[in-house]
Amino acid sequence: MQVVGNGRHLTVGSTAPPLTKGKLRLYSMRFCPYAQRVHLVLDAKQIPYDVVFVNLSAKPEWLFDKHPLGKVPAIELEDGTVLYESLVLCEYLDSISANRPLSNPDPLQRAKDKLLIERFSQFIVLFYKMYQDINALNSDDVMKSLDEFETELAKRDTPYFSGTRPGMVDYMIWPWCERADMLTIIAGDRFSLSEKRFPKLLQWKKFMKEDEAVKGTYLDVSDYVKFFKSRQGGSGGDYDMLVS
Amino acid sequence: MQVVGNGRHLTVGSTAPPLTKGKLRLYSMRFCPYAQRVHLVLDAKQIPYDVVFVNLSAKPEWLFDKHPLGKVPAIELEDGTVLYESLVLCEYLDSISANRPLSNPDPLQRAKDKLLIERFSQFIVLFYKMYQDINALNSDDVMKSLDEFETELAKRDTPYFSGTRPGMVDYMIWPWCERADMLTIIAGDRFSLSEKRFPKLLQWKKFMKEDEAVKGTYLDVSDYVKFFKSRQGGSGGDYDMLVS
Repeated sequence: MQVVGNGRHLTVGSTAPPLTKGKLRLYSMRFCPYAQRVHLVLDAKQIPYDVVFVNLSAKPEWLFDKHPLGKVPAIELEDGTVLYESLVLCEYLDSISANRPLSNPDPLQRAKDKLLIERFSQFIVLFYKMYQDINALNSDDVMKSLDEFETELAKRDTPYFSGTRPGMVDYMIWPWCERADMLTIIAGDRFSLSEKRFPKLLQWKKFMKEDEAVKGTYLDVSDYVKFFKSRQGGSGGDYDMLVS
Repeated sequence: MQVVGNGRHLTVGSTAPPLTKGKLRLYSMRFCPYAQRVHLVLDAKQIPYDVVFVNLSAKPEWLFDKHPLGKVPAIELEDGTVLYESLVLCEYLDSISANRPLSNPDPLQRAKDKLLIERFSQFIVLFYKMYQDINALNSDDVMKSLDEFETELAKRDTPYFSGTRPGMVDYMIWPWCERADMLTIIAGDRFSLSEKRFPKLLQWKKFMKEDEAVKGTYLDVSDYVKFFKSRQGGSGGDYDMLVS
């Protein structure tokens, strides 16, 4: 099991570390759900990589040489090629290593899975209202955005969306599910998923926590809340709060 | 060559036509650039299909049985399965037919192509400002959003982004390029691409107009402007303006 670890986040004035031969490099941020998608895929497929964490509130100048918008996640290949966009990255990584394919080999099922990932963006949009305007966040909307995932799991009748092991859908939606209890802590109990309405999804969440790739990046919701609070009121954010 | 034709757009109160055996069905709108992406891929790969045009200002009730948000493009398969999202559809269509593969077989090049398509969304966002708030539209922003496409064509040194024939990048960005002169007509000459800044892109545009799939769906910019104007001021839009 690869463990992501809690390295220091490089910031303004830093130097880009030299590439490690024979490894791809992931530019990441320890609390970023989009970056976590890529960690999960790298870990699930056991692709060796090194990680460079960056402070997104005070970005290293060199980050813009890697990504035109200075965003994470991005990966840099041995020859200096940089790719970005979490879904593009995850598909790319799945296609360069035959170890544990994460996408369904059937084109129709693969298209359906992509639509499901796309549909999850409804939940993501609502989730980010927590950062922007928590009063605009309606618990009914949140529950409705998850209903089809409950239905889909029941229909597929497998522990994971991808079958007996997590696959692309599972890993692509997981980072926000790992953080979902932030809503309950920050916005109240009405955001808690009920066993009655979401039995399959809550069971899925338990199964996911047992997955080795998930374990390798997992953080307790209290850490996410702590980081979230460290960024409120215009503060820069305590990016290195887990560094010991 | 398949020609998309100019069928009538079904509207409120209509009945969903029965599926044609052995053909997939595309739900489309004659002036929609996202739907055009799918027409282009179907035509380039010579996949037989029938098309049902829908009026997006007064949607048929049954459209919501096909697509949860009542959008186009969507395709319906023989067994009633419906897929949507233009990029998901185009990738799916490319993967079900070996005839003229449109995606690059190399995973790295494919990832780069996907990023390029993703980067084009900058232009799309600006383009839609024409509909929302034309005064907010800055010609410098528009030119800058296209610079990297000029650079990329020069770097690739091929007539099309995908080589000697149009491929996924070409077809995915084409619909907005076909419509780009709307900006000049509606917002003024400063939106016209100069030969000096965009020699490759303007040449590419000429080459694209010679492509059979492009010819099959092509409309003159005056038609797009006419349709655009028919929708202004809260009017429903003259969806059937080309029906003879």
